[in-house]
Amino acid sequence: MLIVMKPGTPEEEIQKIVSFIKSKGFDAHISVGEINTVIGAVGGKTIDRRDIELMDSVQEVIKITSSYKLSSRAFQKEDTVIKIKEELVGANKLTIIAGPCAVESFDQLESVAKNLSECGVKFLRGGAFKPRTSPYSFQGLGEEGLKYLRQVADKYNMSVVSEVMDISQIPMLLKYVDVFQVGARNMQNFILLRELGYINRPVLLKRGLSATVEELLMSAEYIMSGGNRDIILCERGIRTFETATRNTLDISAIPVIKKLSHLPIIVDPSHGTGLRDKVAPMSRAAVAAGADGITVEVHSCPEEALCDGAQSLYPGQFEKLYDELRRIAPVLGRSL
Amino acid sequence: MLIVMKPGTPEEEIQKIVSFIKSKGFDAHISVGEINTVIGAVGGKTIDRRDIELMDSVQEVIKITSSYKLSSRAFQKEDTVIKIKEELVGANKLTIIAGPCAVESFDQLESVAKNLSECGVKFLRGGAFKPRTSPYSFQGLGEEGLKYLRQVADKYNMSVVSEVMDISQIPMLLKYVDVFQVGARNMQNFILLRELGYINRPVLLKRGLSATVEELLMSAEYIMSGGNRDIILCERGIRTFETATRNTLDISAIPVIKKLSHLPIIVDPSHGTGLRDKVAPMSRAAVAAGADGITVEVHSCPEEALCDGAQSLYPGQFEKLYDELRRIAPVLGRSL
Amino acid sequence: MLIVMKPGTPEEEIQKIVSFIKSKGFDAHISVGEINTVIGAVGGKTIDRRDIELMDSVQEVIKITSSYKLSSRAFQKEDTVIKIKEELVGANKLTIIAGPCAVESFDQLESVAKNLSECGVKFLRGGAFKPRTSPYSFQGLGEEGLKYLRQVADKYNMSVVSEVMDISQIPMLLKYVDVFQVGARNMQNFILLRELGYINRPVLLKRGLSATVEELLMSAEYIMSGGNRDIILCERGIRTFETATRNTLDISAIPVIKKLSHLPIIVDPSHGTGLRDKVAPMSRAAVAAGADGITVEVHSCPEEALCDGAQSLYPGQFEKLYDELRRIAPVLGRSL
Amino acid sequence: MLIVMKPGTPEEEIQKIVSFIKSKGFDAHISVGEINTVIGAVGGKTIDRRDIELMDSVQEVIKITSSYKLSSRAFQKEDTVIKIKEELVGANKLTIIAGPCAVESFDQLESVAKNLSECGVKFLRGGAFKPRTSPYSFQGLGEEGLKYLRQVADKYNMSVVSEVMDISQIPMLLKYVDVFQVGARNMQNFILLRELGYINRPVLLKRGLSATVEELLMSAEYIMSGGNRDIILCERGIRTFETATRNTLDISAIPVIKKLSHLPIIVDPSHGTGLRDKVAPMSRAAVAAGADGITVEVHSCPEEALCDGAQSLYPGQFEKLYDELRRIAPVLGRSL
Repeated sequence: MLIVMKPGTPEEEIQKIVSFIKSKGFDAHISVGEINTVIGAVGGKTIDRRDIELMDSVQEVIKITSSYKLSSRAFQKEDTVIKIKEELVGANKLTIIAGPCAVESFDQLESVAKNLSECGVKFLRGGAFKPRTSPYSFQGLGEEGLKYLRQVADKYNMSVVSEVMDISQIPMLLKYVDVFQVGARNMQNFILLRELGYINRPVLLKRGLSATVEELLMSAEYIMSGGNRDIILCERGIRTFETATRNTLDISAIPVIKKLSHLPIIVDPSHGTGLRDKVAPMSRAAVAAGADGITVEVHSCPEEALCDGAQSLYPGQFEKLYDELRRIAPVLGRSL
Repeated sequence: MLIVMKPGTPEEEIQKIVSFIKSKGFDAHISVGEINTVIGAVGGKTIDRRDIELMDSVQEVIKITSSYKLSSRAFQKEDTVIKIKEELVGANKLTIIAGPCAVESFDQLESVAKNLSECGVKFLRGGAFKPRTSPYSFQGLGEEGLKYLRQVADKYNMSVVSEVMDISQIPMLLKYVDVFQVGARNMQNFILLRELGYINRPVLLKRGLSATVEELLMSAEYIMSGGNRDIILCERGIRTFETATRNTLDISAIPVIKKLSHLPIIVDPSHGTGLRDKVAPMSRAAVAAGADGITVEVHSCPEEALCDGAQSLYPGQFEKLYDELRRIAPVLGRSL
Repeated sequence: MLIVMKPGTPEEEIQKIVSFIKSKGFDAHISVGEINTVIGAVGGKTIDRRDIELMDSVQEVIKITSSYKLSSRAFQKEDTVIKIKEELVGANKLTIIAGPCAVESFDQLESVAKNLSECGVKFLRGGAFKPRTSPYSFQGLGEEGLKYLRQVADKYNMSVVSEVMDISQIPMLLKYVDVFQVGARNMQNFILLRELGYINRPVLLKRGLSATVEELLMSAEYIMSGGNRDIILCERGIRTFETATRNTLDISAIPVIKKLSHLPIIVDPSHGTGLRDKVAPMSRAAVAAGADGITVEVHSCPEEALCDGAQSLYPGQFEKLYDELRRIAPVLGRSL
Repeated sequence: MLIVMKPGTPEEEIQKIVSFIKSKGFDAHISVGEINTVIGAVGGKTIDRRDIELMDSVQEVIKITSSYKLSSRAFQKEDTVIKIKEELVGANKLTIIAGPCAVESFDQLESVAKNLSECGVKFLRGGAFKPRTSPYSFQGLGEEGLKYLRQVADKYNMSVVSEVMDISQIPMLLKYVDVFQVGARNMQNFILLRELGYINRPVLLKRGLSATVEELLMSAEYIMSGGNRDIILCERGIRTFETATRNTLDISAIPVIKKLSHLPIIVDPSHGTGLRDKVAPMSRAAVAAGADGITVEVHSCPEEALCDGAQSLYPGQFEKLYDELRRIAPVLGRSL
């Protein structure tokens, strides 16, 4: 922490600040500049920097060590690679996660999984719990949906990705799911994050609608501090003033995160745009920008989907996209 | 729902859309304009308007009925007034909720409550559960904190306002709390909102960091549809590009909400600004703009607070603010 | 400027950075912390801090001196008070600027000015140049409009506030106008700002739609560096994700600016909200938060206004508002 | 325009609205729904829809015809292709515009242009006028810089792209420049846009920092309504709450604009990110999302650049990027 004093602060005032931070267990290094004196505070416990910022003689307080450590590139130089069944996430081959928004029935799931599997997809996604804006909408099949996911995934040798919404669901999900997804609205549900730190299963962590990249990494840190290091980050759009798309998919977060962190980062273009005809362009953009993969909604018959059909690809559209990504991948030294 | 067709769409295409929406149970009214033909779709079940928007001949789909009803001014013309003990929220007298960010000890709470009560404050706030960014920070006193709140409030004839974070806490909170607070991060936690619809206790619902006013009203609707009509809305700042304040307190949401809804609306200037010296100006602004009250953090000794001391007022500052609000209130035909 | 090195950077690398910044004329102070070494760079010319940020061993570069000086509270402790005719802006008495969006005719202007003057208003506003979104809309009366402003203001002993849009208009405006207004879209038109630094007339500088408070102060600095110190800042709403109001009027900018700068700050609730029924609540909020005044659109017959009638007050509404502000002012130790 | 009446509005009130809009020259079509009555207003002159929105019985007023026509896909189905010398912008081959931020000297420009030309680049960019935040910074070479641009471009058979900042510069620029660039800060400088509508030279129009896609198309419309139809749109980043990048480059604007408009759209990753190491990933993303090209800053020696060196590519980096784009292009049926 660096404490920048106002120009012309008398020595006496500076010593007061020094005493204060020493009383909190910090070491203090004073550096006298032409205009401002700067006090470096090292060690010590966490203190709220606003407490110092409110002092009369202080111009600004600057945090210099990032709030996340385990998830940072400084802590681990090499990319994290996560092994899930025979697949490696964060390695050379792109990770493609696909499936319907919600599990609606065994047949619906089986039909789309067959298509996906034939393309080469190894991760099947689908929601079992769907608390919705309206209490009268479809709320998901619950455990029955999870069973279908497991059965269908086993049949086609795929892994299951599904969302956890509450700590009470963890034991049940452990029976069926290979990757626990944390939704954007739960990115800062610290009670849930803490529990996920104690399980031995990879977590797909989605960025919140108004979360900064730094906050996303802090949430990853929260899980990792419990012991679980297998975190896959996911960009899925932020809220801005632009209303032409549901959210603004922040493609630049990909190179930013690649520099700050060693964790794999994938992109969700379905929720990021909310419209089927924007999914393929944004998927290609994500891969071209260096993402480790995508998670995308596909439905055999989107117009009859019980949830988010408008952003689901038709199987034929997905095949075409898959082929496009396969052709872009080598430009980045990757494969699909 | 209004479906605006692209200019020059042939009659045949228009009939296709009409057939489609009729198949979904809607009535269709066609209105031929100079440039665009518009189809009004009335009745029918909820459909995802993006499904129609993706059709080739459709220019735009416009929702005309708001998603909230019970919370709207159209549904109820008169202001909702909520009786809590002897106090009325949403009536002529301003509602002032005050207290520390977190309950730290009986003595801390007793000391500040005494001050507040002497000013005339009737609502005591304090957090018992404090899941924090860092797992090493103070996490709250839990049920013990709630007991202190109840004891101290009873001693000074105040009501207790405290936050609920998870449905599992509801039964315990019912024993101690007069007003259930829902935090900004839980504004769209539909599982929690649904359960709060079934209890017989007022709910203070905070606006999410990136939630629109419409989304806030939809969340209120979610609770109200369960039967609980005693909702107090709370503006507490939105996330914008400006970094000079922690959030941008959206004072204009007050007159906007007063027009759209009959529910009382108060303002939280402590979280809205994050800095003690901005709390009084923004409290005055809130009341001057027509808010029904404020909720504000006060601590006998902010520099020793375990949580958010930097945004807590000293008792003396609070007294001064209380007096200022008392003087502004009559300009709006109110009292304090 | 503080250069924070990555943890574990070898001494050799640190010396490279030191040599580089010395070659740019800076002095370097090294401070070795537990985790990071920090290099303080003092003096020297302006350099782009991103150039250093891109170096491999650098974690972050932090600017510690603010970009504005003349406009800062550190440079001048006492509030700037600007004398315009017999009125003082930034002093005890609130400044009220009122009038129509655009000057439409002598009679229109005379009629509204009479009303305003009877209330006690001393500043008459009105636009003479109105480049509009559509090339077919009313474009303003030009110099004729300025003449009307001058004549009417002289008749009622008022001062004229009108917008300058281009450096070519400055000589003409100098003949008629007492306060030069710079619109939000021109807040960073540096060619215009530079020229306004050389004139001897107060400038009302509006905050841009997506400008931070710091950028607003830098624009004020730009004018002041030319010699003209009479700047009145104006908050008029920023663009956010919220669409319930045209813009989000940032009331918290008032206490923020009061702390950072000695310049007077007023608020424009007409453009800030875009709707007549929000103007009075937000005007009251602005004054209650500590603004030095407001600028507000008033029209004798808003429904016939050629420009922005929807946000113009009726004379009767303005009278009521004026009275409300007169009653709030003493709470802040001010008068009207 | 559609006027949605509040539920339960009496017939009498509806007739009042109908009379009002007829008095403004509109035809009115009434459509009675289950909940709301909707009045369609067709023809008539431009009126401010807020005037109607403020009426007591009106719930909402909805604009149904977009504000832009000439630039819309509805007006012209086929993509606009602009011929500049022997190159076609908006056609199959990607358009690459490259060069330094500012023209600094003949030698600097000649050196980088030689490199670019050898890669195959046909458009040379460079700024001659550089009004900067600080009055003490390099302000550009003015006409001398334009002469260098022309000479160097002619030598290598390239076209010149340079920014116009003020209508007074147009005649001079016409002597040297093949494409007039309008910067983000001038996107709504209607005086400038109007004049550019009368010249016979393509315009590269950059999106403003807080401009919506719709506003960008309206600004294009403004130029086109003067007769000049050769507009190239340019996405260059919007301002959001995220601070990890200077701006948030809105890649999703590319497919959005491709659907709404027939105009070519390119991307500026240099200003969009502000950091050299983000330029290549975002350039690839832009092309993969369907952009018609990019404009990118390249400098022979970025660390000595007088302007924005931190976001300029080294020639070697540019060569690598060019090769990557050449390999991605065929995936979209394009070439480079």
